[in-house]
Amino acid sequence: MPIIHKLLEITTEPGINIHNITPQIQEFVDTSGINNGQVLVFSRHTTTALAINENEVRLLEDVKVFLQKLAPEGDKYLHNDLHLRDVPEDEPINAHSHLMAMMLTTSEVIPIVDGKLGLGTWQAVLFFELDGARKRTIFLQLSGE
Amino acid sequence: MPIIHKLLEITTEPGINIHNITPQIQEFVDTSGINNGQVLVFSRHTTTALAINENEVRLLEDVKVFLQKLAPEGDKYLHNDLHLRDVPEDEPINAHSHLMAMMLTTSEVIPIVDGKLGLGTWQAVLFFELDGARKRTIFLQLSGE
Amino acid sequence: MPIIHKLLEITTEPGINIHNITPQIQEFVDTSGINNGQVLVFSRHTTTALAINENEVRLLEDVKVFLQKLAPEGDKYLHNDLHLRDVPEDEPINAHSHLMAMMLTTSEVIPIVDGKLGLGTWQAVLFFELDGARKRTIFLQLSGE
Repeated sequence: MPIIHKLLEITTEPGINIHNITPQIQEFVDTSGINNGQVLVFSRHTTTALAINENEVRLLEDVKVFLQKLAPEGDKYLHNDLHLRDVPEDEPINAHSHLMAMMLTTSEVIPIVDGKLGLGTWQAVLFFELDGARKRTIFLQLSGE
Repeated sequence: MPIIHKLLEITTEPGINIHNITPQIQEFVDTSGINNGQVLVFSRHTTTALAINENEVRLLEDVKVFLQKLAPEGDKYLHNDLHLRDVPEDEPINAHSHLMAMMLTTSEVIPIVDGKLGLGTWQAVLFFELDGARKRTIFLQLSGE
Repeated sequence: MPIIHKLLEITTEPGINIHNITPQIQEFVDTSGINNGQVLVFSRHTTTALAINENEVRLLEDVKVFLQKLAPEGDKYLHNDLHLRDVPEDEPINAHSHLMAMMLTTSEVIPIVDGKLGLGTWQAVLFFELDGARKRTIFLQLSGE
């Protein structure tokens, strides 16, 4: 059973922003020749995350507001006391971004059926930048037959 | 290594309701002949979700209350301004359901050991309807030997 | 394609505590001889959970405070009315721990590339005890080539 890897590279914008990576994943499935199997999507950072949901522009704004209320940037966090940690000078103040990431998820596994992602009608694979702007990578692993 | 699919179909009740789908998953494992491997459980909607936890009736009521407090239906959400979106007349008002779904999860992978789901004593696979009543589907994918 | 299992056993401390289990998982990968594949990490309890994030001591304290605010132990929960449930005498009062667990996750799948876990620079696999102290088990399943 073949196992195929690909790194997606994404350049994000400042603050929180959400990227629909479904087309890139489907393209990887298309070129792989795998008809029946699965794709593991793995976010490789501690202030990014994944979710599978609807790619509707107003909903994505709602999610941002929701996350900012859930883990407010302005709250007091020990992780943000940079003078008490051994960190480089450009270390970001981003405890809230880590907390948001843990409320979302790092890995998603999506079935592949008849050469297509087995997503429901309204489902999209969403990549969350929670502390941009940065260059980010997402690991894709295809396996199947 | 065989890869076997099955679609579970569930008819849900109005509002939020939680369904224990462990027996259906175990039955699928039983009939597959796979002894050692895994099952991918994939919720195919943007207002449903999965969690693995205890199937205790009073706890499930606590989870509903908790989710309703986390993402209150009555809050203002951009996604709910249907007049500003290109949607059918029967489009539901359900931004809160999408947010709850993203706080839970869409995919779970469960090990199969000696022909049985490798769940702990109190673990059950729970399917969350967050905007019922509807007909819903859950994708199961078994792989192993 | 070989499929290899291992149970990690962890003795936890009272209350909420977070354990970095990355070294144990990497050691299992090292001894397996698998170079290309994946590891399924599965938490086998309803009041424990997983997350992949940064193993920074002050951030881990922030996460504990965050979870305690999200699902306060002192709130009223139906699951905690032990006199209304058929439970042993030593049943813990732990609805808040179940809720925290559902906000985190039970299963994570991590790619293995060139014999190493495909984690990003700052990523660690974190096991959350949410109702300690107890003896806990985490199921690891390696597959690949």
